[in-house]
Amino acid sequence: MSQENDSPATAQMQLADVLAALADEHRRHVVRELVRSEDGAERTCTSFGLPVSKSTRSHHFKVLREAGIVRQVDHGNMSGVTLRRDDVESRFPGLLGLVAAEGD
Amino acid sequence: MSQENDSPATAQMQLADVLAALADEHRRHVVRELVRSEDGAERTCTSFGLPVSKSTRSHHFKVLREAGIVRQVDHGNMSGVTLRRDDVESRFPGLLGLVAAEGD
Repeated sequence: MSQENDSPATAQMQLADVLAALADEHRRHVVRELVRSEDGAERTCTSFGLPVSKSTRSHHFKVLREAGIVRQVDHGNMSGVTLRRDDVESRFPGLLGLVAAEGD
Repeated sequence: MSQENDSPATAQMQLADVLAALADEHRRHVVRELVRSEDGAERTCTSFGLPVSKSTRSHHFKVLREAGIVRQVDHGNMSGVTLRRDDVESRFPGLLGLVAAEGD
């Protein structure tokens, strides 16, 4: 059975948490990939190729989820993430676009 | 004699540095006050009432300056900062507005 982990309601998202989440380059890499993906596409946490240990990877996705940037669903043998694009955009307009454009 | 400390050219500003600078609540307090101030107004570093030591305060302004968010001028017996509003806005549109709106 799939189970969704906790992520704040849109109105409860805090800029402090979102900026702290995005201040890390590996987490920005994840967000950038998701922003550029098809809307609502689910990715596995392992599919981003982060050069980190499993526990560090889990930590990064927890930070992103608790900031409200992604939803994370536990499918038992794997974990999937989707971008909360509309939620983040409505709360912090333009921020995802800045991350997506980084390095262009 | 007043002397300006180094701050990157607009095109050299890095999102990583700007996000890291803004991930700290004291630095966001400074930026929020500057965004809400008159354009180009110079403030002394002590005028923001940061509840930190002198060396920590100096560190915070160094991080803001090296990210390109403020200019800092050493007047000998005091240090003044101004917001690089147009530079930040042209490089990362909307970001200062998000910081200014925090908590509203």
